[in-house]
Amino acid sequence: MPGPLTLGQIVSRLGGRVVGDAGILIGQVGSLDKAGAGQITFLSNKKSLSKLAATRAAAVILAPENESLTALPRIVAERPYAYFARVSQLFNPLSTQPPGVHPSAVVSEEAVLGQGVSIGPGCVIGAGVTIGDESCLYPRVVVYAGCSLGKRVIVHSGAVIGADGFGIAAEEGRWIKIPQIGAVRIGDDVEIGANSAIDRGALDDTVIEDGVKLDNLVQIAHNVRVGAHTAIAGCAGVAGSADIGRHCTIGGAAVILGHLRIVDHVHVSAGTLISRSILKPGTYTGVYPFDEHSSWTRSAAQLRRKGKKNG
Amino acid sequence: MPGPLTLGQIVSRLGGRVVGDAGILIGQVGSLDKAGAGQITFLSNKKSLSKLAATRAAAVILAPENESLTALPRIVAERPYAYFARVSQLFNPLSTQPPGVHPSAVVSEEAVLGQGVSIGPGCVIGAGVTIGDESCLYPRVVVYAGCSLGKRVIVHSGAVIGADGFGIAAEEGRWIKIPQIGAVRIGDDVEIGANSAIDRGALDDTVIEDGVKLDNLVQIAHNVRVGAHTAIAGCAGVAGSADIGRHCTIGGAAVILGHLRIVDHVHVSAGTLISRSILKPGTYTGVYPFDEHSSWTRSAAQLRRKGKKNG
Amino acid sequence: MPGPLTLGQIVSRLGGRVVGDAGILIGQVGSLDKAGAGQITFLSNKKSLSKLAATRAAAVILAPENESLTALPRIVAERPYAYFARVSQLFNPLSTQPPGVHPSAVVSEEAVLGQGVSIGPGCVIGAGVTIGDESCLYPRVVVYAGCSLGKRVIVHSGAVIGADGFGIAAEEGRWIKIPQIGAVRIGDDVEIGANSAIDRGALDDTVIEDGVKLDNLVQIAHNVRVGAHTAIAGCAGVAGSADIGRHCTIGGAAVILGHLRIVDHVHVSAGTLISRSILKPGTYTGVYPFDEHSSWTRSAAQLRRKGKKNG
Repeated sequence: MPGPLTLGQIVSRLGGRVVGDAGILIGQVGSLDKAGAGQITFLSNKKSLSKLAATRAAAVILAPENESLTALPRIVAERPYAYFARVSQLFNPLSTQPPGVHPSAVVSEEAVLGQGVSIGPGCVIGAGVTIGDESCLYPRVVVYAGCSLGKRVIVHSGAVIGADGFGIAAEEGRWIKIPQIGAVRIGDDVEIGANSAIDRGALDDTVIEDGVKLDNLVQIAHNVRVGAHTAIAGCAGVAGSADIGRHCTIGGAAVILGHLRIVDHVHVSAGTLISRSILKPGTYTGVYPFDEHSSWTRSAAQLRRKGKKNG
Repeated sequence: MPGPLTLGQIVSRLGGRVVGDAGILIGQVGSLDKAGAGQITFLSNKKSLSKLAATRAAAVILAPENESLTALPRIVAERPYAYFARVSQLFNPLSTQPPGVHPSAVVSEEAVLGQGVSIGPGCVIGAGVTIGDESCLYPRVVVYAGCSLGKRVIVHSGAVIGADGFGIAAEEGRWIKIPQIGAVRIGDDVEIGANSAIDRGALDDTVIEDGVKLDNLVQIAHNVRVGAHTAIAGCAGVAGSADIGRHCTIGGAAVILGHLRIVDHVHVSAGTLISRSILKPGTYTGVYPFDEHSSWTRSAAQLRRKGKKNG
Repeated sequence: MPGPLTLGQIVSRLGGRVVGDAGILIGQVGSLDKAGAGQITFLSNKKSLSKLAATRAAAVILAPENESLTALPRIVAERPYAYFARVSQLFNPLSTQPPGVHPSAVVSEEAVLGQGVSIGPGCVIGAGVTIGDESCLYPRVVVYAGCSLGKRVIVHSGAVIGADGFGIAAEEGRWIKIPQIGAVRIGDDVEIGANSAIDRGALDDTVIEDGVKLDNLVQIAHNVRVGAHTAIAGCAGVAGSADIGRHCTIGGAAVILGHLRIVDHVHVSAGTLISRSILKPGTYTGVYPFDEHSSWTRSAAQLRRKGKKNG
């Protein structure tokens, strides 16, 4: 990580434009509330105007339309939040674990690790696994045999990649297990959150394309495809063989049923269950609006009556 | 695992009937899309007819009513999907980890392991645990003290069996912890998915009966009973002391509240919250239908008004 | 743990009042159904009256208004369930793992552990972590660098504390990762369930105050605050920067969206999604009422029509 940079040095690397003293030194990022000397913060929407007035940050990143809202030294950029992310990356590593395999990890001799890969304590890497350059697996990640991860993949603790999909067939009141002989293929620049699970395919592979970001406790079932640059928030679940397009966002605790297709640029709201294919880009929602319990009791009773009386 | 088998040898083991060349050799299963030479696939519903026409599989399993839909060598069976599962089991192991205890596992000297049990890297098995013959615990499974697993149980990575139930009593604005002194009892032929959790009982035991199948990230609270041959899909949660019958299916992300009873042969749809006992077999659903966001905004506003105006 | 105690000794320690033989010896607690000789049980509501009549327990804890419902030796207390919790604590430890660091755990030399701390097999404790006296981390807990836990904290297996929050900024169709440089601060007397995840803050810290109880598979995103003595049931998720007050209860599988505020003494029902701030104490609910599938189909179709026709 570099030492402090002036505002001028920052814009020479990342673009944008300085208003005020370009020589001021910045060594870290901070929030509007808590940033102090030597720290740069950002304004991404006008809800935070009162905080901006009170901030003790040394400098601020903001959009052109807001550039006159402060007298502090500032960087003006079209997308202040993305710019802030880039600035933070100048001062902070993307993953904080050193390269190499921790002695407590169990890595098959038949696994292939790229340059600069970091395998944390207690990880278990199966036979035939390949992991691309500069990927980082935090403590206690499991990758079952035969799965592959691309470059610069970050996997957080407790994630399980390649466990058997939930493949069972009914026969005379019992379940027969279907061996899961596919694998999981994960592209470059993917991040997978803590305690998430991505199942191996039943026959073909489960596929997570480049640039996908999965939050914590996300479940990806067998034979799902998650298209490139799609982001899935915490506690969401995707059922078997769902095909999710590129550049989608799936909100927290949303559920995508199986064997359906979602095209590119679809946004599913938090808590929404998607029960059929979505073939048109846009935002889709299905959540019972919460209310005081007594109001809910009445609206729910009416809804239940609707179901009965037209039967 | 056996080597290749002819179609004739397969039906002599599993039943069904060959149409076409019974001498063709099969060495593996595959999907309609991707199966090739030496592989057998299946047709389970007519949606896949176009794929059937294009498949390069060596043979197909299908139902009697569909037997004339292809000219390929084929096995005709009443339940093609279950038959396919059986065929796959001929060529692939149900669990892929060798028997024995991995040296990195921590197994109490007071645990009792049956014949052929496989304990993967990083597993932790507490005192007084018993595990039946041929069970397989993948890496990093934890079984707390006093719990028991039957025969042929498969537990995927990250699952936690026997952690304390969520037993707390309110007293003057604080929570008092209730020691959880029951255990977990798991029957034969149970499968438990990655990162699922089954809590020990508060006083009596939590019980998972024979043949139950749990997907990933499933939560089973203390003192629940899951009846034999019930299947619970990913991200579902079952609250304390719920009593779920036999031969039920619980869809993904469904929630079963506590202290209620569900009889045998009940099917709960994905995303449905069950808030009272179900005493009649059948399929039960409760999901807000998703729609374009603007349509949802209107339907949700009307629903909210219903709650208010009849107050 | 002490040996058996008489009812008289119990009330001299915990308060309440004995009716019947105060000299009877109690060595353990049990359920109304299964308690036997030497065991004490409790009655917390009248639904269990038939079980009370049939119990073979040696003694019962019940409320003043119910004290004449049995002829068994009994302790009369205002809050029988809380009293029962206290009695159980006399006979059973709150955490069952001995103090000390298990040799298979990986604890940074730069971590600071208090007196009597118990670190189970396979735990991983990062640099700069502090853990207060008498805390117990069950097997395979991960605490990332820089996080702090208070005294008497119990963390169940598989929980992950301090993984990166889900901080990503959109830029030309790709996601830029925002380094997560805050930490997690956990107060005293907190309990965290199996396979739960609490993310580190983006800039400032994620904060779990004293006495908070989290069940299994709970997701707490970056920069959340959970106020003191709030309890969150299994499978619930709290999105980034949500501020939850004190003495709240959040039901199972509930979802709290980000950047909103919930005041003290709010109760969110299971399965409810909270999409805006709640500024008034009370109980809030929003769940589609489940029904037989055919009834649901009709009510859902009507609801969908409401969304369309007023468009």
